[in-house]
Amino acid sequence: MSIQDASAIRRSRGRPQVRPDEETLRLIVDTAKQEFLTNCFNTVSMAQVAQRAGVSTKTMYRLVPTKGDLFRSVVAARLGRFFPEFDSKELDALPLREALTRLLTIYGELTLGEEATRMYRLAVMESTRFPEIATAFFQTAIEPTGLVFEKWLSRQAERGLIQVPDVKFASEALRGMMALEPQRAAVLKQKALPNSEAIALRARRCADLFLKGCVVHQPPPSAR
Amino acid sequence: MSIQDASAIRRSRGRPQVRPDEETLRLIVDTAKQEFLTNCFNTVSMAQVAQRAGVSTKTMYRLVPTKGDLFRSVVAARLGRFFPEFDSKELDALPLREALTRLLTIYGELTLGEEATRMYRLAVMESTRFPEIATAFFQTAIEPTGLVFEKWLSRQAERGLIQVPDVKFASEALRGMMALEPQRAAVLKQKALPNSEAIALRARRCADLFLKGCVVHQPPPSAR
Repeated sequence: MSIQDASAIRRSRGRPQVRPDEETLRLIVDTAKQEFLTNCFNTVSMAQVAQRAGVSTKTMYRLVPTKGDLFRSVVAARLGRFFPEFDSKELDALPLREALTRLLTIYGELTLGEEATRMYRLAVMESTRFPEIATAFFQTAIEPTGLVFEKWLSRQAERGLIQVPDVKFASEALRGMMALEPQRAAVLKQKALPNSEAIALRARRCADLFLKGCVVHQPPPSAR
Repeated sequence: MSIQDASAIRRSRGRPQVRPDEETLRLIVDTAKQEFLTNCFNTVSMAQVAQRAGVSTKTMYRLVPTKGDLFRSVVAARLGRFFPEFDSKELDALPLREALTRLLTIYGELTLGEEATRMYRLAVMESTRFPEIATAFFQTAIEPTGLVFEKWLSRQAERGLIQVPDVKFASEALRGMMALEPQRAAVLKQKALPNSEAIALRARRCADLFLKGCVVHQPPPSAR
């Protein structure tokens, strides 16, 4: 008897189908994401998300107690899709320059993507009325991503490949080179987000600048 | 007739005092700044700013036609106080590392200051309802500051002191290292802005990283 047959029997005998909480939560989060991307925080309703996801309000509140938690879950789901890509073993098998370019490309695809940009804009827009969503974005998106960079940088320092005064600063500097201007221009709706090609080029340039700097060690005699 | 006009007449024996437009505009901008810093864009009223500045509504609209222009003037006034400090001759007299540290410190004091942070937050918060203020912030604060960096970098490249693949990218990278994380944390109200000492230290570290990079040129044999 297949799984489908078994569940059909359960349904036909009037016993409620048991869906794992994890799957229900994914349904809720997918629905909530669409709501957050197209509405302001204020107009997203917990009851409406539950209804659209086909989940009872009781289950919804059991799994996600507040709207702040809902936003946090949406951001976490987005990040969750990216963290496996930051896989350290795969990165460590690459030469330093390639590994850093790869790390920055993954970061760029995440941070300079349409979804993250909208979530960030929403968090700033609502930072006065709903401080919990700014906190959720900071704790769920910004801090864990920073930690990925810090860990990678620490490993490279331990391997004797790089030397930085402070790993936290170096992590901030890397992410800043990569993201500040494109993100700010997009959050203010002044420029389109960079495409994958532009992100890859920027990642390469950031990696080179971070590793080698740009000073000319032997300036021409005229400039001395 | 306002109180100011009346007292001017008394002082000048009946001849109306003519205040230069520049001075009137400064009064308006100073008043508007306080309003923008403590209210949302929506609740700032042109008439109220005029009244508080002791200026007739007619004069106000002659000098500043729209609320978007008012916001732009406030941002421009803030930048105007900083641009003289980016003086190129003074910077060029310093050794490269010192000049870059100075440039980044000035930029940090501006961008990571309380006033600029609030203006930026306001511009993002209102980017949907009032896109003109996001445009004003971008065109009046972000673009001109970026240009200062581009010009300075171009001069150093012409002098043969640095070599960058693209001056615009290098300008964005520098500002990003300096500002992204402290600005984002402050805009989301998660961390206090850095003080002058922290800004100066960060500027020094950014200058060193930008110029020299952090790769160890002779890794120990174990890491080769």
